[in-house]
Amino acid sequence: VKTKLSSRKAEVVIGDELPTVLIGERLNPTGKKKLSAALLSGNYELVRNMALDQVRAGADILDVNAGVAGADEVALLKEMVRVVVETVDVPLCIDSKDPKALEASLEIYPGKALINSVTGEEASLRELLPLIKEHSAVVIGLTVDDEGIPKGPEQRLRIASKIVEKAESLGIPREDVVIDCLVMTLGADSNAGIVALEAVRKIRSELGVNMTCGASNISFGVPDRVLLNNTFLSMVIEAGINCPIVDVSTVRPTVLATDFILGHDRYAKRYSKGYRQRMGR
Amino acid sequence: VKTKLSSRKAEVVIGDELPTVLIGERLNPTGKKKLSAALLSGNYELVRNMALDQVRAGADILDVNAGVAGADEVALLKEMVRVVVETVDVPLCIDSKDPKALEASLEIYPGKALINSVTGEEASLRELLPLIKEHSAVVIGLTVDDEGIPKGPEQRLRIASKIVEKAESLGIPREDVVIDCLVMTLGADSNAGIVALEAVRKIRSELGVNMTCGASNISFGVPDRVLLNNTFLSMVIEAGINCPIVDVSTVRPTVLATDFILGHDRYAKRYSKGYRQRMGR
Repeated sequence: VKTKLSSRKAEVVIGDELPTVLIGERLNPTGKKKLSAALLSGNYELVRNMALDQVRAGADILDVNAGVAGADEVALLKEMVRVVVETVDVPLCIDSKDPKALEASLEIYPGKALINSVTGEEASLRELLPLIKEHSAVVIGLTVDDEGIPKGPEQRLRIASKIVEKAESLGIPREDVVIDCLVMTLGADSNAGIVALEAVRKIRSELGVNMTCGASNISFGVPDRVLLNNTFLSMVIEAGINCPIVDVSTVRPTVLATDFILGHDRYAKRYSKGYRQRMGR
Repeated sequence: VKTKLSSRKAEVVIGDELPTVLIGERLNPTGKKKLSAALLSGNYELVRNMALDQVRAGADILDVNAGVAGADEVALLKEMVRVVVETVDVPLCIDSKDPKALEASLEIYPGKALINSVTGEEASLRELLPLIKEHSAVVIGLTVDDEGIPKGPEQRLRIASKIVEKAESLGIPREDVVIDCLVMTLGADSNAGIVALEAVRKIRSELGVNMTCGASNISFGVPDRVLLNNTFLSMVIEAGINCPIVDVSTVRPTVLATDFILGHDRYAKRYSKGYRQRMGR
């Protein structure tokens, strides 16, 4: 299936055989003191610069998250979305657990947004899916439900199926659901990598949906995170992830190489261009 | 299956769930002027240093090839093998198309060697397999036959099956055949990557044999070869290659990361050790 997202000026298509779409993860204050402080003080210069940097580095979509302790998330997320829409042309991935914050941002977003995220929890499905339908948005479905994050690939497929079915029953087409099968950290569980790879293959082959993941979760607490993230990313893209949420500047060369190897970059156009850019030519 | 190789002092085991075994590719004069000149002049200092360097960089096995124009390959290969056996402890992969050169080297090799390689061509099978049997060696089987290198994964599986069957009919056990499904270059054929990945998966699942490949073939004539080789290697190891022939110093970090992700490196022992070595600690 082909998933289409748009901003006022640009459209991005996610799908089989197409180059991997990169969602820039950096506009998220979690663990970032400078960004948190800037947001709390109402200074959006850093947000603008981070948005521009990520797009220059090759981000196709930007994730925008306003999770700062002490802030009014509804107002802050809406303001961040407004500022980022003003600054760059790429579509946005609006990231919050709060339906009110998502609603307020969707109301000002000029295009077809990606929403991060609904889960398989009953309350989440009930509150968020009608909002997605109303705004013709695309939603990321996380494979977690009221019983928590399941250990195995089978149960993740089960939750993904439930999310897709629920969405379809409300008139949200399958292509407007992107599944995130939840990558865990290798440092805590040495099966995290193979579980993720198997879950991606199962969900792709059973449901045919497009898929994202927060690839850098794999490396929390492990040395040389960039190496591990890049290595994992090439494997998981081959398995079926086609719009990962990443630190674009540190993974783009590997993603371009992966697309070239998988035959998704005819005549190596994107790969060669990326190489010339890195070499400053 | 488990494939065992040995030198006088060391044993190397290739198999499922085990860490990837790296075969160092550098002791091959093809395209190397300095090494060719040294070999022609009977100077083995460079050979010794290259052997030591590769083992220090983490090579588990060393490929030894004596293909220099103007040299007597039978005598030269035998001498190179003698020198390398004297210099390092790892098992060797003796690399030649000439059965006489392989025979002379096998006669002086103190252990269970890997032989690179037999093909599906009638003459190759007829001449080489009895030699493998006689010396209880392990043989790499290339998926090429009298009709050339096949385009698709199916035909590569067919040739691999033929090699395994022929070997078994002579009493060479399946674990003593390692298949190389022949990686082609992406620069010439944009399907080279997906054909290789599919061939590896098919051959592994149908025949259960261990598999090697010359991973750097993927990147001939393409910029940033190290990036492309590393990206391809993680994907092809995940598909089932467990003893690639590589430039160890440029790919080992990615291979250690790949093994960690695939759950073949409990507690990240090898990954962490490799990291500390790179950091000089």
